Amino acid sequence: MTDTRYTVAVIGGTGPQGKGLGYRFAKNGHDIVLGSRAAEKAEAVAAEVTERLAGVAGAGTAKGAANADAIAAADVVLLAVPYDGHDELVASLAGDLAGKTVISCVNPLAFDKRGAHGRVINGGEGSAAELAPEATVVGAFHNVAAPLLWGEDEFLDEDVIVVGDSADGKQVAIDLAASVTGRPGVDGGKLRLARVLEPFTAVLISINRKYKTHAGIRVTGLGEH
Amino acid sequence: MTDTRYTVAVIGGTGPQGKGLGYRFAKNGHDIVLGSRAAEKAEAVAAEVTERLAGVAGAGTAKGAANADAIAAADVVLLAVPYDGHDELVASLAGDLAGKTVISCVNPLAFDKRGAHGRVINGGEGSAAELAPEATVVGAFHNVAAPLLWGEDEFLDEDVIVVGDSADGKQVAIDLAASVTGRPGVDGGKLRLARVLEPFTAVLISINRKYKTHAGIRVTGLGEH
Repeated sequence: MTDTRYTVAVIGGTGPQGKGLGYRFAKNGHDIVLGSRAAEKAEAVAAEVTERLAGVAGAGTAKGAANADAIAAADVVLLAVPYDGHDELVASLAGDLAGKTVISCVNPLAFDKRGAHGRVINGGEGSAAELAPEATVVGAFHNVAAPLLWGEDEFLDEDVIVVGDSADGKQVAIDLAASVTGRPGVDGGKLRLARVLEPFTAVLISINRKYKTHAGIRVTGLGEH
Repeated sequence: MTDTRYTVAVIGGTGPQGKGLGYRFAKNGHDIVLGSRAAEKAEAVAAEVTERLAGVAGAGTAKGAANADAIAAADVVLLAVPYDGHDELVASLAGDLAGKTVISCVNPLAFDKRGAHGRVINGGEGSAAELAPEATVVGAFHNVAAPLLWGEDEFLDEDVIVVGDSADGKQVAIDLAASVTGRPGVDGGKLRLARVLEPFTAVLISINRKYKTHAGIRVTGLGEH
């Protein structure tokens, strides 16, 4: 883990996952720019985050901007958008994302009367993370429980598994994970394993429904890593 | 969790996962029949398990038999075979398996220079568990670390996630999980979610390689369940 202070653009920053993760990053010293299609909407949510950060020692700043402006202001971009419309949005931002470290926590899920399940992408040989454009793409934060992110616990009792093909890109997400869990993220291997992390969220949703909870996962056997 | 004492046939009972799970079941009071193509091979491994059970209060028995005989002697069948040859083996045992509760812990994985990854089954809409025959099929025990099963720890610091379309079938695996983890298994939803649990093992293998450990997962947020 490094002590780098990042500036993170959160695309989908007005949704529960993006807002919650952005809040956690800022609470732990990183600067965030929440992005939305409409700058005013992002600014309103940023103001809400800023209010919660009042009095937090060492907190970073929270701003809001239109997506492209948010990305331009940041080194790291968190994609926290719904899967519906994901491909079009990413394509429309391709030029802005080029050269950035992009962390995707997008979960391509479908729901029917049998519950949540993963959507099949590229005949089973693809994932939302692999659809991202020319950038250093990392998959992480798929499985964290959004309601807990915006909650009162200092850290979530979960681990963040990080996958990617760039060690530098993974290190960014491993560092940022500590803002959420109090521990660095866990290096889970290559980017193609996002094909597993994304639909694993469907298992957690099933557990949540059955046990009336916000389930997460921890990786055991690591000791202090 | 119920206190039912099961008789479990372990197909693939001479491999590390089958032998290790069978040992844990028997150590905690269930009777096991390890199955193999060759009865003598299964009997030799059963003798090895029996030796380890000596002096364990309340332990069940461990026997070995040819696969079909093992299944005939049991109410519950654990499929713990390698994915290579899985379909043919299951087809050859279809008549024997009919009407049984079948628990599949089969992991369809592939390995290349980029590491372990999930094999695509039915264009992403299938899993080894879903290929099992006319039986009450449940997916469970995919992610437990075989070396720890045969090790000295009383229980593994992991959770067993159970998926299936039959509540009764899931209950069997939920009960048996307590032999491995000291806690009942976690109901993870419908059988089709085996499509996630099976390749998740590739993530754990990647973590094992990186951190030189035997990683597992725990589900957080459940409290006592």
